[in-house]
Formats: sequence, C-alpha cells, structure tokens
Amino acid sequence: MIYFTVGPTQTDPKLGKYLNDGYKKGIYSMSHRGKAFGEIFEATIASLKKLLNVPEDFHVFFIGSATEAMELVIENCVESKSFHFVNGAFSKRLFDTARDLRKQPLTYEVPAGEGFDFLRVSIPADAELVCFTQNETSTGVSIDMDDISALKKYHQDKIFAVDTVSSAPYARVDFKAVDCAFFSVQKGFGMPSGLGILIVNDKCIQKSEALQKKGMNIGSFHNFSSLLKYAGRHQTPETPNVMAIYLLGKICDSYIKYGIGKIRKETEAKARFLYKFLDTNPRYSAFVKKPGWRSNTVIVAETPEGSAGVIKKLSAKGLIVGAGYGEFKDKHIRIGNFPMHKISDIKRITVSLTNLFTEAICFSGSH
Amino acid sequence: MIYFTVGPTQTDPKLGKYLNDGYKKGIYSMSHRGKAFGEIFEATIASLKKLLNVPEDFHVFFIGSATEAMELVIENCVESKSFHFVNGAFSKRLFDTARDLRKQPLTYEVPAGEGFDFLRVSIPADAELVCFTQNETSTGVSIDMDDISALKKYHQDKIFAVDTVSSAPYARVDFKAVDCAFFSVQKGFGMPSGLGILIVNDKCIQKSEALQKKGMNIGSFHNFSSLLKYAGRHQTPETPNVMAIYLLGKICDSYIKYGIGKIRKETEAKARFLYKFLDTNPRYSAFVKKPGWRSNTVIVAETPEGSAGVIKKLSAKGLIVGAGYGEFKDKHIRIGNFPMHKISDIKRITVSLTNLFTEAICFSGSH
Repeated sequence: MIYFTVGPTQTDPKLGKYLNDGYKKGIYSMSHRGKAFGEIFEATIASLKKLLNVPEDFHVFFIGSATEAMELVIENCVESKSFHFVNGAFSKRLFDTARDLRKQPLTYEVPAGEGFDFLRVSIPADAELVCFTQNETSTGVSIDMDDISALKKYHQDKIFAVDTVSSAPYARVDFKAVDCAFFSVQKGFGMPSGLGILIVNDKCIQKSEALQKKGMNIGSFHNFSSLLKYAGRHQTPETPNVMAIYLLGKICDSYIKYGIGKIRKETEAKARFLYKFLDTNPRYSAFVKKPGWRSNTVIVAETPEGSAGVIKKLSAKGLIVGAGYGEFKDKHIRIGNFPMHKISDIKRITVSLTNLFTEAICFSGSH
Repeated sequence: MIYFTVGPTQTDPKLGKYLNDGYKKGIYSMSHRGKAFGEIFEATIASLKKLLNVPEDFHVFFIGSATEAMELVIENCVESKSFHFVNGAFSKRLFDTARDLRKQPLTYEVPAGEGFDFLRVSIPADAELVCFTQNETSTGVSIDMDDISALKKYHQDKIFAVDTVSSAPYARVDFKAVDCAFFSVQKGFGMPSGLGILIVNDKCIQKSEALQKKGMNIGSFHNFSSLLKYAGRHQTPETPNVMAIYLLGKICDSYIKYGIGKIRKETEAKARFLYKFLDTNPRYSAFVKKPGWRSNTVIVAETPEGSAGVIKKLSAKGLIVGAGYGEFKDKHIRIGNFPMHKISDIKRITVSLTNLFTEAICFSGSH
C-alpha cells in the first residue's frame, strides 16, 4: 500500500526506525522544561533553517497545526485589514479566519483551478497583511515565488504571509520578500500529523507587540510574545508534541544529507511525468490548464467517470490517491508528489490509470 | 530508568507495541477526512467516556494541549467575568489567560501548599465561569470533588470548569456539577505529549453560541461551534494528532480492562505509602501539611538540603523525579503517582531517599 494522498500521506521510509529510536531513548517521557529537550528543540530548528534556507534572524515556532497558524497570524499581525488571494478552500480558510476573528479581510478571488495575474490586482494601501496560499491543496494551483518577491517591492510596509502547507520543503521561499511562512509536517515531511510550523521575522513580532500595547486581544499562550519568550529558553509555552519535534529534526537531517536540490529536481521530474500523462491521455486531464499555475506537489486530475471508482480501483492495486476537494469530490483525484514518492511509484499510477481506461473500453466493447 | 516526573512521565508499558501496531496499520498515513479515521475518533471517545463515566450528552473535543483548553474555555464561556480559585502556577495560568484575553477575571488566592475553605469564599453573582484546578501540579494540592459538587448547588447558573490535567483518570469528576473538564495525555495516561482533551456540556456550547451571536471574538477553528460541527462528522477542524487519538483509545481500553476502580485503589495505596514515609522521615517532609488537601497523583516533598542533589542521586539509581516548580525549584521534589507506576517502584524511591540520608550522615560523621 502506498499513500499518494495529499496529506497525511505516505510516511518517510525511515519513520518506523525514528519512532522506535525515540522510544528507546526515553524521549516520550522527557520533560519539556529540561536541558535534553532544549537540545532537541535547538537541533530541530537548526536543521529546519538549514534545509529551507531560513535566515538566522527569523523565529521558528512549534504549534499544533497549520490551521492554528492561520489563527495566530491574523491575531498577531492584523489590527483591522488583511488582504487575501483566494482561489480555493485553503486560501478561503485564511480569509474566513480573519472574519471569524472580527477583522475586516479583503479578497481578490479567482475561480478554482486558476492562478492570479498579479499585475491586475491592486492591494489596498491600508492592508496590513497580504496572504498567499503558495500551493492551494484543494485545486493544485501554485503561485510562483518570483511573483511574490516582485510584488513585495511595491509593498515593503506590509507583512507578507505565505502558506506552504503542501509545498514545503519543495517550495523555495524567498525570505527577503516573505515575513511569515507556515506549514505542517504530514505532507512533504512524511510524518504523522500533529505539528504545525510557523516561521516569522521581527516585523511580525513588532506588529504583535504593537497590537498588544494597544490593548488588543492577540491570543494567550501562543501569541508571538509568549512563543518568543519560551523559544529563547528552547521551550514552548505548553507541553508540545515532543515526539514530532524530535522526528522533524531527523527527517530534516535526512533530507539535508540526501540534498534538497536533488529532492526538488526529482519532484519536478515526477510532476512533469504526471502532467505529460494527463495532457496526452484521452480520458483523464489536468484540472489546472495553464502550465505556469500547476503545482508540482499536488497534481489534480479530472475523472470524467467520477472519482470514486478510480480511487477504488487504484486502491485495489495498492495505490491510495485522494478524492477531489469539496464540490470536486467526485470529479477529481488528487495525487500528492512528495519526497518519499518514487518515480517508479508514480509510473505505476499512470500505468494503472491507463489500464483502468483500457479495461473500461474492453468492458463496454463486450456489450 | 523509570520516570516519576509529573508529566511527561513514564509511558504506558504497552506504548511501544501500540506505536508499532499503528505504524503497521498505516494509521499515520490515514486521511483525517476518511471513514477509517472516523471510526478511530468514535471508538476513542466511547472508551474515554466509559472510563471517566462521562454522560452521553457531553461533548469530547481533541485539541493541542491543556494549555490550549484554558484559552478555549475563557474565549467560549466568558463575556466579561470569570472567577478563579488560585493556589499555584497552573490555577494562576488560567487566571492569566482570562486577563490576556481581555476579560475581567476575579480571584480567590491562598498561599502555595494550601487548599481552599470553600465556606469562606463568596463567588460574585456576576461571575459567568468558576474555575477549579482540581489538582495543582505545581504544589501537589488537590480539591475534593465533593466540595465542588456542594458549591454547585448554590451556583447552578454558572459554568463550572475543572482542570484535571494531573489527576485524570484517577479523579472522579462529578459531571452533574461540572460543565467542563480538561486534561492532557502525558501524565495519567502514560502517552507522549501533544494532545489535549476538552469535555463540555450543552451549557458551554450555548454560552459560546450566545457570545458569537453578540459579535464577540470566540476564536476561529477551535471555537466550540467549529469543534462541535466537525465532531458531528467524527472529525476535527484541522488535521489532528491522529496518532495520539489512536493511542488514547488503546490506553483507555486497557485501563477499562484492568479496572478503573482497581487503578484508583492502587493510586491511593501508593500515595498513602509515600505520605507515610514523608510524615515519619526525619529529613524529608510533605509540602502539603493538611491531609485533606494532599494530592494522590502529585506528591511534593520538601528537600532541606536542596533538590538538585537528591534528583541527581535518585537519577543515578534509575529513578527520575521532578524538581519543585518555580520558586520551589530547589526546595522540593515532585513525584508523579500514575497508573503505570508500581508500588514496588514507589518503595524503591523511599528506600533510595532513606539511603541518601544515611549516606549523608555517615559522610558528615567521617569528618
């Protein structure tokens, strides 16, 4: 059984070993206020920063999920107005979060399956935060990091926040343009779910402190001041998911050893293979039509005969892919393309899809 | 090495097996929106409710930590005033949380090591929420559940919230008097940290909905409406710690099989043994003087010669106990007494403490 779901997904091949090592070392009994945990905390952050090329002066916070990151970013970086590029369920979720938290979010929305023409958008001058979902997991549309970097030149005063939930660590985040990035670990890091990562610079911290001084509600234990204070001691405000922090360090070390450049090249090669298949296959096609908008980590295919049957048949061959998201549940399959997925496994998906099609033809031909 | 720390602590003896079983079953790759996860979600809640005797109409929510529970309870159950019984760092934390979230919390505070004389306290009529830290992990003081039940009779209109972080599942929570209880899993459940449990009744839900209708900020993804909506589908709003939800179900099943009555009796027998040792030992003594206030799950001992040396010497014998909390760091040791701790191990602590004392006498005698 190989999981090609978009997260949780197939775990890293060494996960079983890492889990057991942690158990034997007593890490799951370790105090979150002790020196040994502090060393794990520091080591994981150092590895993550190295892997993702995060500048030294950025802060890495361990939280519960990327969904929690959305709440924290809005609470700590927005007094009144945030601006959101929306093209699917997860970019919409960040917008909804701002609304739930009684802010006045503004949005530039395009239909599902489309990306943005940034030249046509004018970001309001009073927007404090600009939010990008760099990889929209619901539709498989990605934003080119260069577009974000180019846009930042005209909006130096604003905080730029980037959701890389389903593209990290593949995505090359330009931390000169991006003030805040967040993701979770059950996708591109091949880990069990239950840990979110929030990376912020001092501009975000200063904004949070300014809001706090104004007497605004910026949350309690996970407001940026609290997270920063504890991070200074190599700790978290609450008892965190110690196991996941430990595992993340191991996975980052292993990715660094393998080479992030190699991981990126392989990801692109696997994506090219899948899109080529979809572009030439008579039955299945890529949902995202414009090549420049296509995600390399979440590949969404249209399934004219419905997705349930396709998913079931692939599953019978040991290949688990995801259904479409929301209204597309039965119209799409979504295929995760993460570091633990091998090109040989991706080829098995295309072969199986081709065979399903051929079987279907034979079957209808037999009538 | 046996961890007697107050949490994270010694893990359940079967944890290694459960972790591996989950890995082999593909649970760490499983979709949090699929049927298989829904079944785990349901089964864990059913086991937890059975173990803790939670009435059917209470809702069980899976969150990140007990610290997060504090934030959620204040956000969702308080418009303006909460009332807090404070006698240590964790009861104080809930009070601080209310202040951080811009409420007007009131407090009745007694010195560390003391409990409350509830007859002498008058809870203000306009307090919406009354908060009890049933087991104060920082000092080892517990509140008798009967006192909470008795108090509720005069305050039926108010929401009663009880922190059982370091007493669950030993504590018998009276859900006729208590509207909300919360705890985490790295203490009495012998699990890795990274999951909080929040149990609420419809009174809490209704309060949350009323606040939301008034246009108040009750948080976003983990507000009670959102948690309840997803729970109805056997899901959580975010991708949760699926592993921990699975493990918790296994641990609850195993506790039910062993017998919660037996676990409680054994806990009390182990606590009696430890307190008797402290009450009769010439060097070490119980920090909590009044027997009725003494916790059965967190036993705090005064160490006149400082705690660091005692902790180090016990550690050399494979017995890991915790330091005192905050200002008592070097004045106390704290001993967790949870279901995985055997009476024979508790006896080893007392023998080791006695020997440390004798060695110290011999040493000073040799001069």
